[in-house]
Amino acid sequence: MPKHAISPTRHEDYPEWYQQVVRAGELAEASPVRGCMVIKPHGFALWERMQGILDGMFKATGHRNAYFPLFIPLSYLEQEAKHVEGFAKECAVVTHHRLELGPDGRLIPTGKLEEPLVVRPTSETIIGAMYAKWIQSWRDLPVLINQWANVVRWEMRPRVFLRTAEFLWQEGHTAHATEAEAVEETLRMLEIYATFAERDLAMPVWKGPKPSSERFPGAVDTYSIEAMMQDGKALQAGTSHFLGQNFARAQQITFADATGSESFCWTTSWGVSTRLIGGLIMTHADDDGLVLPPRIAPEQIVLLPIHRSDEDRAAVLSCCESLKMRLEGSRWREEPLRVKIDDRDLRGGDKAWQHVKQGVPLRVEIGPRDLAAGAVSLARRDQAPKDRQTLPVEQFVAEASDLLEQIQQGLFERALAFRQTHSAEIDNQAAVHEFFAKDGTHPAGFAHVHVADDPAVAAALDPLKVTVRCTPLNWSEDPGTCLFTGKPVKRRSVIARSY
Amino acid sequence: MPKHAISPTRHEDYPEWYQQVVRAGELAEASPVRGCMVIKPHGFALWERMQGILDGMFKATGHRNAYFPLFIPLSYLEQEAKHVEGFAKECAVVTHHRLELGPDGRLIPTGKLEEPLVVRPTSETIIGAMYAKWIQSWRDLPVLINQWANVVRWEMRPRVFLRTAEFLWQEGHTAHATEAEAVEETLRMLEIYATFAERDLAMPVWKGPKPSSERFPGAVDTYSIEAMMQDGKALQAGTSHFLGQNFARAQQITFADATGSESFCWTTSWGVSTRLIGGLIMTHADDDGLVLPPRIAPEQIVLLPIHRSDEDRAAVLSCCESLKMRLEGSRWREEPLRVKIDDRDLRGGDKAWQHVKQGVPLRVEIGPRDLAAGAVSLARRDQAPKDRQTLPVEQFVAEASDLLEQIQQGLFERALAFRQTHSAEIDNQAAVHEFFAKDGTHPAGFAHVHVADDPAVAAALDPLKVTVRCTPLNWSEDPGTCLFTGKPVKRRSVIARSY
Repeated sequence: MPKHAISPTRHEDYPEWYQQVVRAGELAEASPVRGCMVIKPHGFALWERMQGILDGMFKATGHRNAYFPLFIPLSYLEQEAKHVEGFAKECAVVTHHRLELGPDGRLIPTGKLEEPLVVRPTSETIIGAMYAKWIQSWRDLPVLINQWANVVRWEMRPRVFLRTAEFLWQEGHTAHATEAEAVEETLRMLEIYATFAERDLAMPVWKGPKPSSERFPGAVDTYSIEAMMQDGKALQAGTSHFLGQNFARAQQITFADATGSESFCWTTSWGVSTRLIGGLIMTHADDDGLVLPPRIAPEQIVLLPIHRSDEDRAAVLSCCESLKMRLEGSRWREEPLRVKIDDRDLRGGDKAWQHVKQGVPLRVEIGPRDLAAGAVSLARRDQAPKDRQTLPVEQFVAEASDLLEQIQQGLFERALAFRQTHSAEIDNQAAVHEFFAKDGTHPAGFAHVHVADDPAVAAALDPLKVTVRCTPLNWSEDPGTCLFTGKPVKRRSVIARSY
Repeated sequence: MPKHAISPTRHEDYPEWYQQVVRAGELAEASPVRGCMVIKPHGFALWERMQGILDGMFKATGHRNAYFPLFIPLSYLEQEAKHVEGFAKECAVVTHHRLELGPDGRLIPTGKLEEPLVVRPTSETIIGAMYAKWIQSWRDLPVLINQWANVVRWEMRPRVFLRTAEFLWQEGHTAHATEAEAVEETLRMLEIYATFAERDLAMPVWKGPKPSSERFPGAVDTYSIEAMMQDGKALQAGTSHFLGQNFARAQQITFADATGSESFCWTTSWGVSTRLIGGLIMTHADDDGLVLPPRIAPEQIVLLPIHRSDEDRAAVLSCCESLKMRLEGSRWREEPLRVKIDDRDLRGGDKAWQHVKQGVPLRVEIGPRDLAAGAVSLARRDQAPKDRQTLPVEQFVAEASDLLEQIQQGLFERALAFRQTHSAEIDNQAAVHEFFAKDGTHPAGFAHVHVADDPAVAAALDPLKVTVRCTPLNWSEDPGTCLFTGKPVKRRSVIARSY
């Protein structure tokens, strides 16, 4: 048995460790189509859990799902100047609508389109065009719609889950009668993302506005949640944009108020993507592979029957079946426990290691001896693979929900402690340089500094490959002067390297 | 108040009636992108219900979801000769991966791809390529994967839900060690589709193999479920394909058996799409709009508070809230009832008619007088809009689940009776001509005839615009001779006009 299931380890080669965790966890792999990934069943099950929880939160706040076209006419993309600048360089373009077999047996595109179509990189323009038709009066507002969809942004340097040409996401698009309502919506969705990240993914985040240089193309304000990965880099894990009247003006999304006078709507958009799976991995995985918070784990408990004879097998399996039923009768955080029996004909060691690498929170082995003793042998994924404890079955059933809660909270606290260790308040330029000059084996992390929203800041940070991630909303006021421009600012911001 | 909410009626102009039902029900509309539809929230909620039920059935039979790329390299499509023939004429082709602003401010595609990419019309080839990598030995089989996705088949004459350039669907793709297992899987999924159609959509279907001329390009056998719409036409509502070793051979999907010898896998694929929403509409909707079977209705019961004074409003609303809670405490077919209170500030008549047009199974009005009498005023969507009955609240709560069951079954029986009325066993060519010569106001329907699986049959039926839909598996044997070729056949087939 190797010392660790994943080689190289995080310290040896972080980027390669990440690829190997994805591979060993059977989450995803590269596809024959450049930049596009195949999300394998275990990876997709994580996305389904994320979708399920977020979708419930969106619906509980009055949003409904709909579906808009994959394709966007070029002329729509041209409507908002900054938007087109932001996306033009990474658009897949459909130019033909049929194929013909050439003399050499190869297919040739024919049926040239009059107007080329772009595969949506995001849907503000096509959805805005529909809102312009749907919204007539204040009675039609607010419009609160979300879409679960695939989008394409051509990537020259793809990285599975983090940056892929095609990815899955949700994009919320709302229209409001007043600026205040739209801002409130923008912040409500930011809050939902932050709650989901911390409560369900056990991933601590800072939430706040980004500097102008990091805004969504066409937005007035972009807010993000930012999480720290185990290499100290920041991952932008979700964004919520206040679009002001920019898109409404470009697309003529207007409404008549109660007096009959016409105004432009105020719009928002917000999204998270399969990138969250990358964030989940890099927050919790260790040198043995994936570690899943129980809230997100497709299976929270795996039961591993151990037997050599057919007679043992029948007895052990029947015990597993009844244990499964009893566990599924318990609830944790308002859901029945998710339990799986793995009775595949594999060597016991290989089987247990597969579940380690796939991050299952609790592994329970049951053999003839346990059966006789009325006990189970329990291993927690948040502890070393060899740490096992033997528990009476009754006690395990009674405590299973508590164990899941402990693991969930333990993972959050561990991530929080990591962030704390790798964060520092810094008050002069030299110390910023020193902070980010640390060699690769010691992740730098987040520097909390005073910076103005000014291009000079981005320019000063650029040589360090560092950017301003966000200015956390819930940090207390702490006035100071910008380290790079000398301008007065009210609170600190997070600066970091990022994905 | 018009006589009917939908104009024209089914009898006046069936195709236009369909469009108007979709419009009045706020299900979907055409988009600015030719052939692509926008699925509006009420339409998408139907799709979510369908997804939820089917996904549960797929998982209960051992399938897992995954996600494969949107794009397929041309060279992959070329691998299976019949497959490429079948889809080449309707493929959207991506040829460029960026845009540049031209001197006139218009965008121009640049960054030409070395190999063009097709937007998936179906995913056999790209999924097969992955299976070829994943499958090594018999221990890796069966592979049972499903994908929920969008696909694109360029349509010259699009029709909302029934035939659109982009549509949403699920596509199952499985690989097996033996022919028998693959055939069993093909039939299992056909059976799941038939059960779902009849039990949940209340849509009677015939299920069976299609003639060779109607096969999926590249399949050995294609099975379908076929439903009768209210104009007597058939709708192919789901298909399940036995692909034999055709794709395995073209893509080298092989496995080593227990003795180590290599064989090609046997594969299947099966799918249903947003077309089912079109089928649902055309099975149940009437001249007042959509009629939803309670199993599929996003809301099964809408409570409509009626009040003039603020005082009344508070009392009526509080009564609605408590009624909603009690109803949601009841279960029907293992799910809590889905109840909505509609307290929007709209004229009562308009509001009730909106729910009629959207097909809500039960509408319940509660006003101050009902409150005083401890009663509710109930209208069923499967009865005339003006038919109301007054029920004591207690009785309504006790009977709500039964009412939903009655409506669900009633809709199925009505559709079944319609199919029966418009079906006939026919035993000679002249009668076939007569059957399908009926004028448009009297739908022809399904003719049950003896036909061989022979190109001559398709040729003979072509002038009538009729095709062989399927040969129902569960019809008893009834040997006869093909009406068009004289060949002996064992059982009758369904022939009909179709969508």
